Amino acid sequence: MNKLNKQIKMSSASIPTIRRLPSYLYLVRKAKEDGVEIISGTVIANELDLEPIQVRKDLASTGIIGKPRVGYKVSDLIDAIEKFLNWDKKHNALLIGAGNLGTALLGYKEFTKNGLNFLAAFDVDETKVGSEVHKTKIYHIDTLSDFVKKEHTQIAVLTVRSGIAQEVADTIIAAGIKTIWNFTKVKLKVPKDVLLLKEDLSSSYAVLSVYS
Amino acid sequence: MNKLNKQIKMSSASIPTIRRLPSYLYLVRKAKEDGVEIISGTVIANELDLEPIQVRKDLASTGIIGKPRVGYKVSDLIDAIEKFLNWDKKHNALLIGAGNLGTALLGYKEFTKNGLNFLAAFDVDETKVGSEVHKTKIYHIDTLSDFVKKEHTQIAVLTVRSGIAQEVADTIIAAGIKTIWNFTKVKLKVPKDVLLLKEDLSSSYAVLSVYS
Repeated sequence: MNKLNKQIKMSSASIPTIRRLPSYLYLVRKAKEDGVEIISGTVIANELDLEPIQVRKDLASTGIIGKPRVGYKVSDLIDAIEKFLNWDKKHNALLIGAGNLGTALLGYKEFTKNGLNFLAAFDVDETKVGSEVHKTKIYHIDTLSDFVKKEHTQIAVLTVRSGIAQEVADTIIAAGIKTIWNFTKVKLKVPKDVLLLKEDLSSSYAVLSVYS
Repeated sequence: MNKLNKQIKMSSASIPTIRRLPSYLYLVRKAKEDGVEIISGTVIANELDLEPIQVRKDLASTGIIGKPRVGYKVSDLIDAIEKFLNWDKKHNALLIGAGNLGTALLGYKEFTKNGLNFLAAFDVDETKVGSEVHKTKIYHIDTLSDFVKKEHTQIAVLTVRSGIAQEVADTIIAAGIKTIWNFTKVKLKVPKDVLLLKEDLSSSYAVLSVYS
């Protein structure tokens, strides 16, 4: 993808649109498995409790145009969403913190089959170093800097304990990491050119514990 | 908690407020560890990149009132948030689907130390049945209905593969489950009296793969 394409892409879809696209993709992939060839925006909207106009706008950002009163060709729609999300490409990443959650993510097929490719995992625990989890080797975190420089990996999935999260984030950013997917509770402070995504499992647990 | 209290509580905080409370709690717990006794709304707001007025409004929903120009007593604030979130109580729950993600959640201290208490895990895989993961015993899913009736558990954390998610949801709702924390990709269809919370890891991965 050249720079111009990336620029066009970045302006053509809002973050909420991007966040909704995986649910469309899952639905349309399933329709394909069931032998469906054409699917309408209204059917998708009904299945996902969204407004049809919202669905059509979201799908239009991927560049696909449906046939009025008919819908989208299922295989084309799958291709369009996958390409738009870059899920047809590999995204090399490092896992930092090979604890319970971290090692679960290494084996989480939902990500790996959509391009996420863990090159290596890092941990401070010497007893874990050298072992493999879901075919990903665990290295000592002290060797991360050299690894990033050699492999030019820019994406890190952060699953360390919260107490050391900021310190580890500083280290991996200094080593060259440009995107951090933060599974810790800490609101990390990062330079402006670092893309930070926070996965906030505690928020849902809060709603659950208040309302159930 | 009697019904009236629950009613007052349910109307006194919006879902976005409830979702933000864990980040306040984490910050204030950490301040306490660091020996801080009084914390101001402005300090909390700065740390979390929020507006001070937002923070004060959110915290007011827990019933605590800060001293003008001074702030909140740290220990009182912790108590108020924990009580409001019901994190000072046990929430008995069942894990459905003892795969990678499921077993990671069984050992995820962030939830367990805030009251989430897994009574049992259920799976279709006979080879897993009878074993223990993070001290939680795995049972066959066919025995779930009896278990729910006996233990009156109403919360289920759903980490089965997406292909069987709706079927399993139907089964556990029929058995008496009233709250489902859905980690699958499926948009579940549930009766109106069932509280459904969806954890959407793919949405963040979508943003990551578009922008990084």
